[in-house]
Amino acid sequence: MTVPHTMRIEQPLALDCGDKLPGHTVCYETYGTLSAARDNAILVCHSLTKDAHAAGRRTDGGPLGWWDEAIGPGKLLDTGRYFVICADTLAAGGSTGPASPDPATGRPYGLRFPVVTVRDMVHAQHQLITRLGIERLHAVAGGCFGGQQAVEWSIQYPGAVANAVVITTTPATSAHSIAIFTVMRRLIRGDPAWNGGDYYGQPFPVAGLGAAVAAAVPLWMSAEMMEVRFGRRSGGPRYTLDDEFEVEQFIARLAAQAGRQLDPNGLMYLTRAVEYFDLVRTYGDLARALAPVRARMLFVSYQRDWRYPAAETDRMHQALLAAGRDSAHVVLDSPLGHGAFLFDVPGLAPAVSGFLRDG
Amino acid sequence: MTVPHTMRIEQPLALDCGDKLPGHTVCYETYGTLSAARDNAILVCHSLTKDAHAAGRRTDGGPLGWWDEAIGPGKLLDTGRYFVICADTLAAGGSTGPASPDPATGRPYGLRFPVVTVRDMVHAQHQLITRLGIERLHAVAGGCFGGQQAVEWSIQYPGAVANAVVITTTPATSAHSIAIFTVMRRLIRGDPAWNGGDYYGQPFPVAGLGAAVAAAVPLWMSAEMMEVRFGRRSGGPRYTLDDEFEVEQFIARLAAQAGRQLDPNGLMYLTRAVEYFDLVRTYGDLARALAPVRARMLFVSYQRDWRYPAAETDRMHQALLAAGRDSAHVVLDSPLGHGAFLFDVPGLAPAVSGFLRDG
Repeated sequence: MTVPHTMRIEQPLALDCGDKLPGHTVCYETYGTLSAARDNAILVCHSLTKDAHAAGRRTDGGPLGWWDEAIGPGKLLDTGRYFVICADTLAAGGSTGPASPDPATGRPYGLRFPVVTVRDMVHAQHQLITRLGIERLHAVAGGCFGGQQAVEWSIQYPGAVANAVVITTTPATSAHSIAIFTVMRRLIRGDPAWNGGDYYGQPFPVAGLGAAVAAAVPLWMSAEMMEVRFGRRSGGPRYTLDDEFEVEQFIARLAAQAGRQLDPNGLMYLTRAVEYFDLVRTYGDLARALAPVRARMLFVSYQRDWRYPAAETDRMHQALLAAGRDSAHVVLDSPLGHGAFLFDVPGLAPAVSGFLRDG
Repeated sequence: MTVPHTMRIEQPLALDCGDKLPGHTVCYETYGTLSAARDNAILVCHSLTKDAHAAGRRTDGGPLGWWDEAIGPGKLLDTGRYFVICADTLAAGGSTGPASPDPATGRPYGLRFPVVTVRDMVHAQHQLITRLGIERLHAVAGGCFGGQQAVEWSIQYPGAVANAVVITTTPATSAHSIAIFTVMRRLIRGDPAWNGGDYYGQPFPVAGLGAAVAAAVPLWMSAEMMEVRFGRRSGGPRYTLDDEFEVEQFIARLAAQAGRQLDPNGLMYLTRAVEYFDLVRTYGDLARALAPVRARMLFVSYQRDWRYPAAETDRMHQALLAAGRDSAHVVLDSPLGHGAFLFDVPGLAPAVSGFLRDG
């Protein structure tokens, strides 16, 4: 069983918004053993709605970690060889975020928590990594929001990243993704129990969160994947407005379960951080943004991932090549689209394991 | 100014669900003049969230009809030549539906209104058309839900349809579309004001309807169209969770306006009807489904319409060709994707006007 660790870091953390956190707490898990030379660590960055629990089970009967298929002895990230770390980002799960006590009042921050960026999150992770005694990561890896973190790691700490695996990540979050996220936030805010974000110690806005999770399903699950998993199967037509089709029942289950793991405010902060990710706006242009990078870079995208098009990912790859950096871009095909890195690890394995082995 | 007409039809209407409506009311508009030979009528079938108000304005300052760009003197459906009819389907707008009085109680049906199918709607439209003295339509035309109606017209009334224009329509509604619709219905039901569907004479569940409309935006508006219209424009980053990006403000406006035109129950019934559309399930197989068709058929699909793929549309076209019928399938390209038939009439015009002229 994996054990979640908590580290309290009493060092101020300056944020992009101009505020400063006086200190922060990081919740993280590790798998495998750190080598004596401390050179075998891989930081896995989680995607939206995921957290530090990347592999194994925290308790008997608890859920498997979100990338359990990829992390373990003999697996893609072989814990017989690598020391794998996964940490909640700021505002996600057990790390400091809107659910944490505001030092000024002792009560949970709620929406008084500062709006944080992916770069802020990477700065916080770096404080963790250095306190674990690791100067240089063998690799940083992540998909989507996790891939944005991996890119910022490579930019912000060129000396601390030997290899970066950046999956389904584009130089900026698209208008379309912003549209999805704003809908999710609207649905959370629309729940009276949300109460302006001050629901801690009271009933959670589970209805709003469930609605947000439901609304997101047709966006992360591709049309093809839905066709394969559910098609038009139903017991009907029964000529009702009830959840007759299997795909409806699936969405209803996801919505009903949503309250258990996610903090609604946290989801709002994380989606906002993803929206603010824009290398051109942040750094001036793509070449300038990626100029500091020294890591070997592997970009992975999916041909049928219409939300994070391979052509957009390729712009980062090309900018790195033009600057003489070591970069590869592998375009895979999967009917799963954007979610493929979570659900089709075997499809991902050849490119990533070769890259890590050679690195 | 166009005037909405209302026709009460006191003839029982047998429904696919096994129930019967004792009679029904149809709300419709007409544009142009019916010829003495009564051979110049074109029935336009509306898509979801639209209604009989297809062209012109009902009142000074009222909104233009949803296909005003396509209907009028010298336009694609030239009212100098054609008599264009557009009618609310059952359960939409002013025609009989959940908002109508239940003859059994005198109170609005609400969810006691029977669940109706696209075929039921076409049967109801046929009763209207015959009462207008029209035996044979020069054409039936529609996109999406409207295209499903046009297909059923061609199947159900082969002698009454000379030409059919079927836009962005597939032989069956996909799991992915069902997923979107079930989310929309969940959001409507989730509004306490919805009150089990019995909200007539009380405050409408505008919040739930607004949420449903908002949740649907990232699905009908393509990623490319959003990029062109909004991109990542914002006044920020302001480091807030407010609607900073222009695309967020657009969605907020749509949600706020949603209460004005749509009946939430009606939207639930219409989405269900669309979900039940499945030629194979209804008729056994595609060849059998389309065997009665005698109309010249024109299918139009859009290359980048990932929700209604051209390859699926082509299955109907191929089945008709195999049966020796007169069918054409034009695949257009538009960054607008599925909504192109509404927003890019000039792009649609060459194929459709040629087809109608020759027919």
